Amino acid sequence: MKPAFADVESAAARIAPHAQVTPVLRSRSLDEMAGCTIAFKCENFQRAGAFKFRGACNAVWALSDDSARRGVVTHSSGNHGAALALAARTRGIAAHVVVPEGAVAAKVAAIRTYGATLHVCAPTLAARDEAAARVARETGATLVHPFTDSNVIAGQGTATLELLREAGELDAVIAPVGGGGLVCGSTIAAKGIFPQTRIFAAEPEGAADAYASLRRGERVTDIVPDTICDGLRATFGQINFDLMREYAIEVLPVSDAQTIAAMRLIFERMKIVIEPSSAVVLAAILRHRERFAGLRVGAIVSGGNVDLDRLPWLS
Amino acid sequence: MKPAFADVESAAARIAPHAQVTPVLRSRSLDEMAGCTIAFKCENFQRAGAFKFRGACNAVWALSDDSARRGVVTHSSGNHGAALALAARTRGIAAHVVVPEGAVAAKVAAIRTYGATLHVCAPTLAARDEAAARVARETGATLVHPFTDSNVIAGQGTATLELLREAGELDAVIAPVGGGGLVCGSTIAAKGIFPQTRIFAAEPEGAADAYASLRRGERVTDIVPDTICDGLRATFGQINFDLMREYAIEVLPVSDAQTIAAMRLIFERMKIVIEPSSAVVLAAILRHRERFAGLRVGAIVSGGNVDLDRLPWLS
Repeated sequence: MKPAFADVESAAARIAPHAQVTPVLRSRSLDEMAGCTIAFKCENFQRAGAFKFRGACNAVWALSDDSARRGVVTHSSGNHGAALALAARTRGIAAHVVVPEGAVAAKVAAIRTYGATLHVCAPTLAARDEAAARVARETGATLVHPFTDSNVIAGQGTATLELLREAGELDAVIAPVGGGGLVCGSTIAAKGIFPQTRIFAAEPEGAADAYASLRRGERVTDIVPDTICDGLRATFGQINFDLMREYAIEVLPVSDAQTIAAMRLIFERMKIVIEPSSAVVLAAILRHRERFAGLRVGAIVSGGNVDLDRLPWLS
Repeated sequence: MKPAFADVESAAARIAPHAQVTPVLRSRSLDEMAGCTIAFKCENFQRAGAFKFRGACNAVWALSDDSARRGVVTHSSGNHGAALALAARTRGIAAHVVVPEGAVAAKVAAIRTYGATLHVCAPTLAARDEAAARVARETGATLVHPFTDSNVIAGQGTATLELLREAGELDAVIAPVGGGGLVCGSTIAAKGIFPQTRIFAAEPEGAADAYASLRRGERVTDIVPDTICDGLRATFGQINFDLMREYAIEVLPVSDAQTIAAMRLIFERMKIVIEPSSAVVLAAILRHRERFAGLRVGAIVSGGNVDLDRLPWLS
């Protein structure tokens, strides 16, 4: 079921007691460099360190009391797993997170910190789906998919809702695309307020399945991701593909080198800590500057969960 | 001449068209760790990357048109030099910055970026004073001292003014102490609004001249600084000593290791980029936690100008 603008508004009301209204920051020097004015919506300041908390929180609080009592389950070794664990904690219910063997220890630790039950499975897509289905069957927990779930998509849209209500009309909004939940939520939110606002998706060249799919007119699912953007390696979903086609969202690919340079610029000029998956938006604005010349641009900075011992410009 | 609360209020009005009202950020996890609630006033988001712009801007805009026409001069190889250069540019006047031979290239480059004229001198205090006095004599420029100047102190106080107006009454405010301009300005601002608020100064053990001076009851000027906090190596001034005595400000020393750990925590939990000199405030709260237990604490995060290729926890 495709979410509508009203669903984003309901999500905003539902998550308001729990989520952070994140700041919108600007940088004169980055504006000069880019030749446009950029309002950065800083979801790195969101709870659990990423926009993912919005969608997870909306999904958790949209459950009936009866369903909620049986908990939630997802498969994710990254930000969605931690976000769902924390969201479940805000409602006092159980969260089960299926994690592939060999997942990054720090991320698994974060999921555990928020009190979720971990289920380890083999590192394949099939094993993940199977394990999550099994947990759902055995516990009665509701599956909350990281990016195809309608409540998750509507929740992710609340970041753009806040951005536009604070910054006013923007000519363009750009968000990273991995599974597609954030881009789709952002689009529904933006079009509901300012129908003229153009939406762009920034995608790593090494995981450009959204780019390839929209070009080909059908979903490409056989790309093996090779990018430092660990949050953007997912193969994006059917509902996400359909929404991106419907709204004619343009995907702008960027190289990892451009992403790393943009990430360092954001640390240096904006004084904020972001993860590589967030830097793709500035990388895309700088690489495709002719698209944005003179415009008022909103950029969704998706998260800040980065390994501070391995900042990518140092390796 | 010692600045009063009215001078801080005038400074706030004077710099309003030019300075940033910086955000106040909080962190649940740091509050839990510290056992108190901390409102971080984030001057790393200030123009030129540090609170120094407030004092420099106030000094520049307090000049008569006649004086302004002849420009300003200071000696500083750090944030004050860049701040004064940028402040002078906002008024369209000349800035001269005396820089010791061997100063950090990146900082000198920043000063040059803002359009100041650089004057290189030998790396001694006497040479710096002499060079600045000579430039003042030859050009008629007004000397703007980094921390003893009354307008500079009043300007630095505007950060705390904003903090208290946003956060409401706080039990304590803590700021780093180097030359003493920020601590003195913060004290005057806080006492003018909430006379009961206690003021603390955080100081590196390796440059603890404020701590030693207040203990001994006279200014200690023979300490050779040895700390990673490059912004806190200055020997603090007479007016700063007098004000700190008058207000019975308690100095809390911290080790560089504690500062580095606090700096990493702030990157990780708050997702902001700060310089070592700013991390001393959290280091002091964590080390001297019995002083802050259960209190509402305001912490001035002084700046974010750090070499991202040499983050201290990586060496």
